[in-house]
Amino acid sequence: MKAGYSAQLSGMKQVYLDNHSNTRIDEHVFEEMIPYLKENYGNAQSMHSFGYRSKEVLEKSRKQVADLVGSKENEIYFTSCGSESNNFAVKGAAEAYKQKGKHIIVSSIEHFSVLYSARRLEQQGFKITYLPVDKYGLVLPDDLRKAVRDDTILISIQHASPEIGTIQPIEELSKIAHEKDVLFHTDAVCTAGLIPVDVNKPEVDLLTLSGSQFYGPKGASAIYIKKGVRIIPQIDGGIQENGRRAGTENIPCIVGFGKACELAKNEMNENYKKMLHLRNRLISELPEKIDYLYLNGHPEKRLPNNVNFSVEFIEGEGMLLFLDQKGIYVSSGSACASKALKMSHVLSAIKIDPAIGQGSILMTLSKYNTDEDIDYVLSEFPPIIKKLRDMSPLYNYFMKTGKRKVAGPGTDYEHKHGHEENLE
Amino acid sequence: MKAGYSAQLSGMKQVYLDNHSNTRIDEHVFEEMIPYLKENYGNAQSMHSFGYRSKEVLEKSRKQVADLVGSKENEIYFTSCGSESNNFAVKGAAEAYKQKGKHIIVSSIEHFSVLYSARRLEQQGFKITYLPVDKYGLVLPDDLRKAVRDDTILISIQHASPEIGTIQPIEELSKIAHEKDVLFHTDAVCTAGLIPVDVNKPEVDLLTLSGSQFYGPKGASAIYIKKGVRIIPQIDGGIQENGRRAGTENIPCIVGFGKACELAKNEMNENYKKMLHLRNRLISELPEKIDYLYLNGHPEKRLPNNVNFSVEFIEGEGMLLFLDQKGIYVSSGSACASKALKMSHVLSAIKIDPAIGQGSILMTLSKYNTDEDIDYVLSEFPPIIKKLRDMSPLYNYFMKTGKRKVAGPGTDYEHKHGHEENLE
Repeated sequence: MKAGYSAQLSGMKQVYLDNHSNTRIDEHVFEEMIPYLKENYGNAQSMHSFGYRSKEVLEKSRKQVADLVGSKENEIYFTSCGSESNNFAVKGAAEAYKQKGKHIIVSSIEHFSVLYSARRLEQQGFKITYLPVDKYGLVLPDDLRKAVRDDTILISIQHASPEIGTIQPIEELSKIAHEKDVLFHTDAVCTAGLIPVDVNKPEVDLLTLSGSQFYGPKGASAIYIKKGVRIIPQIDGGIQENGRRAGTENIPCIVGFGKACELAKNEMNENYKKMLHLRNRLISELPEKIDYLYLNGHPEKRLPNNVNFSVEFIEGEGMLLFLDQKGIYVSSGSACASKALKMSHVLSAIKIDPAIGQGSILMTLSKYNTDEDIDYVLSEFPPIIKKLRDMSPLYNYFMKTGKRKVAGPGTDYEHKHGHEENLE
Repeated sequence: MKAGYSAQLSGMKQVYLDNHSNTRIDEHVFEEMIPYLKENYGNAQSMHSFGYRSKEVLEKSRKQVADLVGSKENEIYFTSCGSESNNFAVKGAAEAYKQKGKHIIVSSIEHFSVLYSARRLEQQGFKITYLPVDKYGLVLPDDLRKAVRDDTILISIQHASPEIGTIQPIEELSKIAHEKDVLFHTDAVCTAGLIPVDVNKPEVDLLTLSGSQFYGPKGASAIYIKKGVRIIPQIDGGIQENGRRAGTENIPCIVGFGKACELAKNEMNENYKKMLHLRNRLISELPEKIDYLYLNGHPEKRLPNNVNFSVEFIEGEGMLLFLDQKGIYVSSGSACASKALKMSHVLSAIKIDPAIGQGSILMTLSKYNTDEDIDYVLSEFPPIIKKLRDMSPLYNYFMKTGKRKVAGPGTDYEHKHGHEENLE
């Protein structure tokens, strides 16, 4: 979208509510990175003291990451991004354990980096079960229990959904995996750093986390690999990361990632409360100002920074464009596929009616958001919806007849799934 | 190696000659990165003008990379590092063309990220031919021609060796590949940005380059994929990089990489001359001060920044340690395996006698090195060698008897390979 940077250029207030797509780097993180972007450019594998300085901060950063998730330092492996970690976990474990079996279970609302890794394995002869979720996006433990087979080697279920905010019952799910002697991976990209994540409670075998979700830089993420778990490297080559991930270590970004983990641990309670307050304001106050607005995802088992609404009778693109012109930056759904305007796989999985799902809006908060930001959204968003609905034939038809219709003229419909209780 | 940062802390002169392991980021590159490390943190895939700003610089950077290697913009794909690009090229092409055949040819002195990718494919049923090289590290075109089979699908030969500096006859090699209708990949990590690299002359199908070799940041590298060449993604997931490499684009590092490409193109002649002058000083003046010193790699077909000597009668580790104490930072060989003190696979391939190879030293220059740096090395290095040789039983035996001996007492030997012409 090229809206001419109107808000950016005019000096208008800007409210960034797209923190799942990326967060602003904390200034303390940036400060920590600077020496490694400038004078301390030694390679951590070099055999001289200049390189050893990089090796030292590499291991210091590893400890900072380990401390955030309660693991041992030598169970943390650095990668370049969350998608790489997820590919590594799913494909690497699949290849390592394929002699034991070739069945893998993932939820149907996983991040694309897990889903498409699973699909790639399917092409190689693995069998994948895509678990359904309920209308809140929850994986039901019974569904998982029934899906496990004798040849199941891996279960991968996201800790929480970045799109609809729903936090999974990960304790029960990992317990089922371990009762059946199956490896359990969780993609904790949108939880680690925001809410408590501990690789021992519940016990997981593989875990993905990424600092760019909590004020660290892009370019450094990690995978936790429990001691004893085998995994086949996906980037072969040098001896870095104990031979499990080749490539010169990206020291500046890793240093920033480590610092972000340290800050996240220290600030977690404070940031949690702050974001929860702002989130709850949006969730409670927006529906007071906009009719036919439906919250997606679980109302309580929910990330503190996630707000996802479907706005009936309008399309997402127009909504995003008008918000953009007011300097309000939001998302229509999963960041990785946000340019595809069709309804996301997550909204499809929770069986949102497409007529409603096309008007979905995802707002993700950060520690930088303020009450003033929320006031601004509450003041600017409702008039936009009014304007869009005034132009909407669907809305006008509904206003006249009290009936809803979709694509074909005269085709009335009722909402069959999801938000029945909200609908009049 | 933990030498206590003696040189760093004492304010002693420091000479960094380990630029293959990593280069210092150019300050113009760093300046260009700052806004994207701070206020412009939008996700390039986001549907708002704040994210569009990142999309714009992403494409600007892609053009800067394309301009450096003479490709079209849509043939450049960003990755996180050279090792990832090499894995992507070798494994991705192998998987895409395996219906056509399962034979791959690589040289025996490739970077580990190519060699170990080939080894991984071997485990999956591919057949790999590891081409020998001559005593200078050159792949002989006739060897390649003979190695090509009906089921050969890919040839991967490094443009130049970062360890011994030898530049391959890439024109002839790629021509042979294309005569036989085989894909040609070249790892140009240590040539792109330093010497002219053009994907059309000679024509290549896949090419790896990395900005951290020429004053760009770590965290952004690229692979050139010629239009029409098929490749299977190795990091599956989102729509980034035209669906060929998932993961949120690392905009700050990509911006730095792009700027580094622009600078490299503009400064190439100047930097080339400067480094060549310094390299030639080391190559001609060091042997005047140190006996029994043998240049590894080709004397003329050689990278302008590469000096690799074997120093007889001593071990590499002691040499590196003493140099480190003088603030001279060098390498014993391939950066990725430099902590393994055994002779590198490259020196083995050019058949250096292990008794000599263990005393090898790799010095790689950058545009920041000066004549004063070289003066300092020429003044500090020879006394170190003298000290080490005075302590060396092998050297003392040779001085007394005029004969060389290795491990077992009384075992005299002659140099059978490589440097016959230099030996007395």
